[in-house]
Order: sequence, then structure tokens, then C-alpha cells
Amino acid sequence: MLKIHHLGHSQSERIVWLCEELGLPYEMQKHTRDPVTRLSPPSLIALHPLGAAPLIETEGMMLAESGAIVDFILARHGGGRLQHGPDHPAFADYLYWFHFANGNLQPVMMRMMVAGRAGLPADHPLLAATRMRLDKVLGLLDARLARNEYLAGDDFTAADIMTVFSLTTMRLFLPVDLQPYPGILAYLQRIGGRPAYARAMAKGDPDLTPLLV
Amino acid sequence: MLKIHHLGHSQSERIVWLCEELGLPYEMQKHTRDPVTRLSPPSLIALHPLGAAPLIETEGMMLAESGAIVDFILARHGGGRLQHGPDHPAFADYLYWFHFANGNLQPVMMRMMVAGRAGLPADHPLLAATRMRLDKVLGLLDARLARNEYLAGDDFTAADIMTVFSLTTMRLFLPVDLQPYPGILAYLQRIGGRPAYARAMAKGDPDLTPLLV
Repeated sequence: MLKIHHLGHSQSERIVWLCEELGLPYEMQKHTRDPVTRLSPPSLIALHPLGAAPLIETEGMMLAESGAIVDFILARHGGGRLQHGPDHPAFADYLYWFHFANGNLQPVMMRMMVAGRAGLPADHPLLAATRMRLDKVLGLLDARLARNEYLAGDDFTAADIMTVFSLTTMRLFLPVDLQPYPGILAYLQRIGGRPAYARAMAKGDPDLTPLLV
Repeated sequence: MLKIHHLGHSQSERIVWLCEELGLPYEMQKHTRDPVTRLSPPSLIALHPLGAAPLIETEGMMLAESGAIVDFILARHGGGRLQHGPDHPAFADYLYWFHFANGNLQPVMMRMMVAGRAGLPADHPLLAATRMRLDKVLGLLDARLARNEYLAGDDFTAADIMTVFSLTTMRLFLPVDLQPYPGILAYLQRIGGRPAYARAMAKGDPDLTPLLV
């Protein structure tokens, strides 16, 4: 059986959620961030040089990187669900938003977090530039979600699973006001209504009320 | 014919290189960074809200995000080349290193760049933590490349195409000393010996000597 090493309050919620959406049985081993540094605990560093989460054990190997794990699980257990193949009219949209999550959204959130931790004065040009970039990225997402039920279009896909963490749990580390983005907020309500999402959050992070607003 | 909007000194070199490796005909429109801010020029912002590069025009649409573009081009024009499918023994390795490029390597380089631009004192804990993370990420890559010809193993794949920018052209923006990583340096020599890489750099960034050492 697939084993998920789940680090609480982390991107590894994506993998728990994916398995719940697929109805794929899994075993979960929980790891908890260092309460002071918020970094990976020694239990994860013992398993992977970067202390990376998510991390799965399957077919006798360890696999990290959420994008890789999602692609791997979909190829092995998806049976075509939660993704669009080359013949689907929304194939390019699926790929774009799948990769946008770690290619644009999560990086600008991280940049904002780093700029914040640097303790810069509020008018520092680096903070202003990063905030402007974050506004643009969230604005692009908001416009997409105002016109579409899900990121790839009509269908819920793994592009949504890759994206939601940055809009919800990531806000534990970097407060971001989503009120200017009604398209994103309505989308998060739709996500919150998915039984598989609720099950994943309840199993993986029972101490956490998902940040859907 | 596929049209690549190539921003000089940027991740879009990945797409030029991919097309050269595949022997896929393409048209290239060049864009140049603002000489002061190093940001995308108005010509790219006119095409995409984020001024994103790479950006391709194909099948009557615009597609951004290098990971998405690579997956799209491989699906349409790859015929199985430059990637490993689910039945290949190195399938998981291929996926891991493909996603590692934008999931770990490029983000820690960006964090280092942001921390640098914040003008922090050399002993600031944020700089120390980011440098430690960068060392770990480069160390992991180095260990992999010391034992393998290419990232996915014996075969050159799109995982290499996704990764090399962060180790070469990115160093125009963030000087990183690769001397402690002989596995990476030897790998970059192997990459530099690929005719398709040399053609891509000569066509896309003729003013730039690729930073292979």
C-alpha cells in the first residue's frame, strides 16, 4: 500500500487530498514541524536529504516533489481521472495551471515571505515590487476563476490540487488578504464543499480549520 | 509553425533548446529585458498579463509556463523522445528531477536573490538559512550527477532541459560558486558538448557565453 509521509501544515496535504479524490487507499505517517523554527523535523530529514514533504513510499522506493508525486500517482492509479490528456480541448489549460502552482504562485508567496522576514521598512522597493508581483499573480488567478468553475475549466483536476495549498494553508506562514479577489474566494468555497478535500484536511491536519476565506 | 517568444537571458532558453533537441522547426521573436530593472519589456507584457517568458504561440493560442510548454511540446511533437513513460524503470526519476527544477532548485535561487537584494548584513540569520538550503539543494544535485550521466539516469531528457538554466544563465543574476560541486561542473561540460544546446544558445542569446564553469 502507498505510504504518505505527511508533514503537518505543508504542501503534502496535496497528496492526501489526491488520494482521497481518487479513492486510493493509503497509509499515512505524520511528521510535525519544529515548533520554533517551523522547519522539517529530524524524522523527515532521516528519510530525505532535504527533509522534503510530501514524500511517498511505493514500489520499494521513496519519491518526493509534489508535482512528481501527483504525476506518478495519476499515471499509476488515475485511470485518466483528474487530468486532461493531449486530445482534450483543455489539455493546454490543464498543463498551464498545473505548472503555474509551483512555477509562479508558490514562488511569489515564498518571495513575499522572505522579504517579510528580512525585516525591511514598509517602503522598501523590494517589498513594493514583490507585493506588485503577488497582486498580478493573484489577479490572473482571480480572473480565471471568475469565469471558470475550476482552473482547467469545467472539470476539477490535479491543477486544482496543486494550487489550493498556496491559497489556504500557506496563509498560516504569510498572511495574504484575499478579499480583493472574489473569484478566488468563491472558488475556495467550492473546494471546501468537496467531501474528499474535507476528509483529507480532517485526516492530515485535524488541528487546522482550512483557510477558505 | 510554432512561434517562441524568447526573452533574452531567461528561462525561455529552455524552449529554444527543447526545439533544437527535437529538430522541431520554430520561429523566434526576441524580447529584451529592461536594461535598468532587468524586468520583462512592454512587448511581452502586451502578450501576457505577467509578461511571462517563455511564451509560445501554437494552434491559435498562447501558452506560458516552461513546465507546461515542455509537456505540451513533448506530447505533440516528442513521439516519446526526451521523456520516460510509466513503463520505463526511470519513470519516477524522470518525474522527480523534471519537477525538482521549478519545485526546489529555481525557488531557492530566487530566495537567495531576494535575500541578497534586501541588503542584509552578512551574518543575518535569513541569509545564513537560505545559503544553507542552497548548499543542500546543490549538494543533492551534485551527488546525483556524480553517479549519473544525466538527471533521469543514462538518458538525456527534458528533466535536464528544465534544470540547466538555473545552473548557468541564472548566475548572471545571482553569482553562485559551483566549484564545490564537481559533479555539477562535469555535467555542465557534458551539456555544453551537445550540439543542440550550442545552437539554442547561439540563436537565442548570441551575446552570452554560456556559464558552464
